Amino acid sequence: MAEHKVTLLPQGVTVEVPTGALLVEAIERAGLGLNQPCGGQGRCGRCAVVVEEGAVRRRSVIRLSAADVAAGYALACQTVVEGDARVLVPPQEQIERRLVTDKSARPVEVPFAYDPRAEQSLRILELHLDPPSLADNLDDERRLLKGVEAALRLSPLGAQGAGGREPGRGPSLVVPLVLRRNLGGVLRQGEWNVTVVLETDTWSSPRGVWRIIDVVAGEIHPYGLAVDIGTTTVTVYLVDLLTGEVVDQAAEYNGQIARGEDVISRIVYAGKGDGLEELGGLVRSTVNTLIERVCGRRKVNAQRVYRITVAGNTTMTHLLLGVPPGSIRLSPYIPAFNQPQPVCAGEIGMRVNPLAAVDCLPGVASYVGSDITAGVLAVGMMETEELTLFIDVGTNGEIALGTRDWMVSCACSAGPAFEGAGVVCGMRATAGAIEEVWVSSATLEPTVRVIGGGKARGLCGSALLSLLGELFVTGVVDRSGKFKLDCGSPRVREGEHGGEYVVTWAAETATGKDIFITQVDVENLLRAKAAIYAGFSVLAASVGLDLKDVQRVLIGGSFGKYLNIEKAIQIGLMPDLPWERFGFLGNTSIKGAYMALLSREARAQIQVAAEKMTYVELSADNTFYDAFTAALFLPHTEIARFPSVASLWEQSGPRRNGNGCAGQSQSELAATGSGNGGKG
Amino acid sequence: MAEHKVTLLPQGVTVEVPTGALLVEAIERAGLGLNQPCGGQGRCGRCAVVVEEGAVRRRSVIRLSAADVAAGYALACQTVVEGDARVLVPPQEQIERRLVTDKSARPVEVPFAYDPRAEQSLRILELHLDPPSLADNLDDERRLLKGVEAALRLSPLGAQGAGGREPGRGPSLVVPLVLRRNLGGVLRQGEWNVTVVLETDTWSSPRGVWRIIDVVAGEIHPYGLAVDIGTTTVTVYLVDLLTGEVVDQAAEYNGQIARGEDVISRIVYAGKGDGLEELGGLVRSTVNTLIERVCGRRKVNAQRVYRITVAGNTTMTHLLLGVPPGSIRLSPYIPAFNQPQPVCAGEIGMRVNPLAAVDCLPGVASYVGSDITAGVLAVGMMETEELTLFIDVGTNGEIALGTRDWMVSCACSAGPAFEGAGVVCGMRATAGAIEEVWVSSATLEPTVRVIGGGKARGLCGSALLSLLGELFVTGVVDRSGKFKLDCGSPRVREGEHGGEYVVTWAAETATGKDIFITQVDVENLLRAKAAIYAGFSVLAASVGLDLKDVQRVLIGGSFGKYLNIEKAIQIGLMPDLPWERFGFLGNTSIKGAYMALLSREARAQIQVAAEKMTYVELSADNTFYDAFTAALFLPHTEIARFPSVASLWEQSGPRRNGNGCAGQSQSELAATGSGNGGKG
Repeated sequence: MAEHKVTLLPQGVTVEVPTGALLVEAIERAGLGLNQPCGGQGRCGRCAVVVEEGAVRRRSVIRLSAADVAAGYALACQTVVEGDARVLVPPQEQIERRLVTDKSARPVEVPFAYDPRAEQSLRILELHLDPPSLADNLDDERRLLKGVEAALRLSPLGAQGAGGREPGRGPSLVVPLVLRRNLGGVLRQGEWNVTVVLETDTWSSPRGVWRIIDVVAGEIHPYGLAVDIGTTTVTVYLVDLLTGEVVDQAAEYNGQIARGEDVISRIVYAGKGDGLEELGGLVRSTVNTLIERVCGRRKVNAQRVYRITVAGNTTMTHLLLGVPPGSIRLSPYIPAFNQPQPVCAGEIGMRVNPLAAVDCLPGVASYVGSDITAGVLAVGMMETEELTLFIDVGTNGEIALGTRDWMVSCACSAGPAFEGAGVVCGMRATAGAIEEVWVSSATLEPTVRVIGGGKARGLCGSALLSLLGELFVTGVVDRSGKFKLDCGSPRVREGEHGGEYVVTWAAETATGKDIFITQVDVENLLRAKAAIYAGFSVLAASVGLDLKDVQRVLIGGSFGKYLNIEKAIQIGLMPDLPWERFGFLGNTSIKGAYMALLSREARAQIQVAAEKMTYVELSADNTFYDAFTAALFLPHTEIARFPSVASLWEQSGPRRNGNGCAGQSQSELAATGSGNGGKG
Repeated sequence: MAEHKVTLLPQGVTVEVPTGALLVEAIERAGLGLNQPCGGQGRCGRCAVVVEEGAVRRRSVIRLSAADVAAGYALACQTVVEGDARVLVPPQEQIERRLVTDKSARPVEVPFAYDPRAEQSLRILELHLDPPSLADNLDDERRLLKGVEAALRLSPLGAQGAGGREPGRGPSLVVPLVLRRNLGGVLRQGEWNVTVVLETDTWSSPRGVWRIIDVVAGEIHPYGLAVDIGTTTVTVYLVDLLTGEVVDQAAEYNGQIARGEDVISRIVYAGKGDGLEELGGLVRSTVNTLIERVCGRRKVNAQRVYRITVAGNTTMTHLLLGVPPGSIRLSPYIPAFNQPQPVCAGEIGMRVNPLAAVDCLPGVASYVGSDITAGVLAVGMMETEELTLFIDVGTNGEIALGTRDWMVSCACSAGPAFEGAGVVCGMRATAGAIEEVWVSSATLEPTVRVIGGGKARGLCGSALLSLLGELFVTGVVDRSGKFKLDCGSPRVREGEHGGEYVVTWAAETATGKDIFITQVDVENLLRAKAAIYAGFSVLAASVGLDLKDVQRVLIGGSFGKYLNIEKAIQIGLMPDLPWERFGFLGNTSIKGAYMALLSREARAQIQVAAEKMTYVELSADNTFYDAFTAALFLPHTEIARFPSVASLWEQSGPRRNGNGCAGQSQSELAATGSGNGGKG
């Protein structure tokens, strides 16, 4: 077998390895250390190296983006040497930093060629007005409008003069009261040189009234915001409207969480006393906190934010706008609106320019909101002929199935467990969160990856999911999710409400407390995954399709880009399809909102999606509850639906049985699955 | 000489009198009493009788309207018997009541044929919607819009669907956020039968966006408000928008008075600290008090007020809208706006339907506001070829001169004296106000007429004016307005700040205190009348015209209909022209606002007036101050300008001289006139 020279940088050590050796073997042969938390399964991405030159073959790129591969990245544990090569082994720290950047503030690329002049209805006009005099005593407002008119080279604007009613004039031009209140001061401060922001149309008023939304003594650089309001998490992008770039982003738990974890409990809360005002205030406060954070970090004056697009589920949109959501939860489940007209930021207390138009994107129905229509746009479902299953895993699991020609959708309440909320040691996917866990099948000891690389503070959604899969595969929990207290690991212990597994001992955490998962947490996760699985199963059946026919499974939501597909299938959250059909796209809702902020065409596509999509009300479907109950097991009551998992489970069967944890009968298991995966 | 039989009803007494006898003589001959406060000068209107039949000739109808004359009314002291006649002598009480009604709540006639469908942009639509179901799960808002569309038989509205951008669709239809917040509840409360108020255009947006401004479970009767915001007095008309009728009216001092009596002091106050907010709050509070009063009296739900037109001077309009008026008072005297765009009532805290459009009518310049443009409309100046002088006597004296083809205007600060404010015993023209005073030249004892006929509480503007005239003509004050303390009447006394004249002794007043006029009051009145006289003199001179050329003098403002022309000329407030050229029209500003509320044409005419009128800045006119100073005397330094007054004064000269109050030299008089009648 041929030997190949592999030179390892930056050290410059060269070793010889045979054809077919893994890069990780070459690195070991050179005496260089490489941390492999997942044990060389290609799952953790920790062993990424850069192949600067040479012949290698990547067996798996599951942890790498196309851009990563183009840049030469390869996983040392999954890459075969086929010729001489020069490979950079970055210090582990460096890789850590790359992951952190990816996870907590991954740069967002402008998704298409962006021409603000064509795409934005905002015009920035610099005016140089003649100062008034006794001979030229035009009032301030008309002086301004005359300047705007000249700048636009329009025919006299309809707002002016007695001719306002005459047809054939230019559009009416409105100066909102709040601007009129400052106009005189601004004109004089600027010595009659001012910059005007003119809004020429809105989504709901494409023709007709033009609005002046700001007049400033000085220059203006305009910004926009894309906002995703989830039941559990709120995310904002601060966008430079001239370049289209996301200049910063931030996310935070929705301040409403303490008033109920899911939309139903929020709706109930909103119906009591001042509940509606309180919930509205809490989510607005969360949004404002995020606005302050991104604007503060980037030294952007929030008054220069002139446009906001908002995606969110229907209940969240109602609460943001202060509209009672009560009828959403009562049959026949009718929202006050699905296609909200724009409001001004000031009307809903958003701390940006009070005249900025806030465009809450159109949704489909009470339980399929604009988070889904925006997501459908973001994942490209509007452009594909392939049968696509789009699953947005948030507190509500919302699902769309179809192609560019037809779409059906449904929703099921997953609960906030996948977002790290409602779980004892749960947290959002920020610095200090464990984001992935591997459990050794030999020792039942875990290895973890922590966002930011420091000591752990808790478990985020992707960690919970991977942990559940590992606990199942290693036999720490049985198929009903029950902890096997006698499995022999000191990490498995009896807690207040049943078994627990300690992921990180107190001495090694940032909080000084154990990080662990409880029986109740596991049951929450089971209900969440069962609701989602039951949802897309029933949805596919409703249009007479089998899950096997699905060509692409696109997953949005709180897991981020690095959710482990293998684990998602192992626990029965995702259908048992070939891995290459899956795509984890992170927060697709905010991406869609961002695209709608930048592009008229994207905004129009979301509208089309909202109108095209047929909504299936699961609570009116007899088969849903049965499907949910059947999915409350690992991976599912009918394990035959998960052939890849069945085979894995059988391989490790002896260990589980050897620990005295024999498979329970289906009837015993059935008693464990409680709760309701439906929305009501 | 022929004798004629005059039968006096209801008593049925018949007396004979010769041709040329006055009716009052016939009544006296019959032994029937008739109170004549003015001593038979035809000035007080107290001796009005009804000539049911017969030949009489009215020598003066100054106290009677055309309608009164048509109804047979005649002043007994001014009516000559020329044949047999039957005359009803109403009990004095009855006449009193007629005057009271006239003065305090005179019914306002609908000024033209009124077709709400043609004139109003509001549509009241009764909708009967299909309730939603699982099969028909259209959201509340689109269900409503679909119903509106069907009711209007419009093509699909532009606000709906992806086709919003397509040309040729109907106008966009906006549902404001505040309505969306209640929509679900209202639809369900009304069991899907609701009434919608749709606004199809506004003055500034004749085309384009349609707004739903109310949705109610039940029927709707729409109302409007006409509002006049004076520096001193605020007046509202509550108008039934279906019939056009004024169903009630009310007036109140502007709550800002305590923060300054004239516009200049208000502007200064607005520039300090929270002054702008405070003044805005005060005037809004006054308006709201009046709205509550008229709506409360008529049991009208203020939420059913869907449109408001506001007339007022430019500073008042700025303060109402919360716009800083600072630049109004500084050369070159530029307001923030002259032609304010409509705002929503909710934006300025008016307690009616928050979505009601508030249309502040267009004005001309910083000191000629919409009170004048509305007044010009109300007095018919837009339709006449006669050279007309229109004087609006408020706190600011605003003056327009011209014909339907051209107009010039100016303003001068009269101060609030003519509105009863800033005067020790002054009050508004409401019940208890003395509205006219006659002083006997023999005894110097007064006779008064009190609004409502009860005990007096104070002196309103018309009383102050008639009192000043009487005091001058009877020699109680000299030509400089100084009290003659030695004139022999116990009513003339030395007060804290100079002479005083007691009109009603404490024992006879409702307050238990003397009602009197002081030297300072007289000086205030002199400055007020001098400012106005100087204003129209300079204005006429500016276009090369003489006051003698004026064919009509139309006077609006706080005097009401019964201001005494003779007295107004005697004190030099009005030019010495034949009485028949004068018309006293009361509050012309509110009348114009009312007309604009009812008629698109009227509203357009006000716009034309605002654009047509040339503004003359008196403070930039060298001749104004001289003219003002010359007018600070009774009637004027150059008494030759007032031939009718000169002749009267000469007749009564002996009395004045006999009391030791010989005419002072001009130079002595000149020292008395202080203060500035200009605005700055």
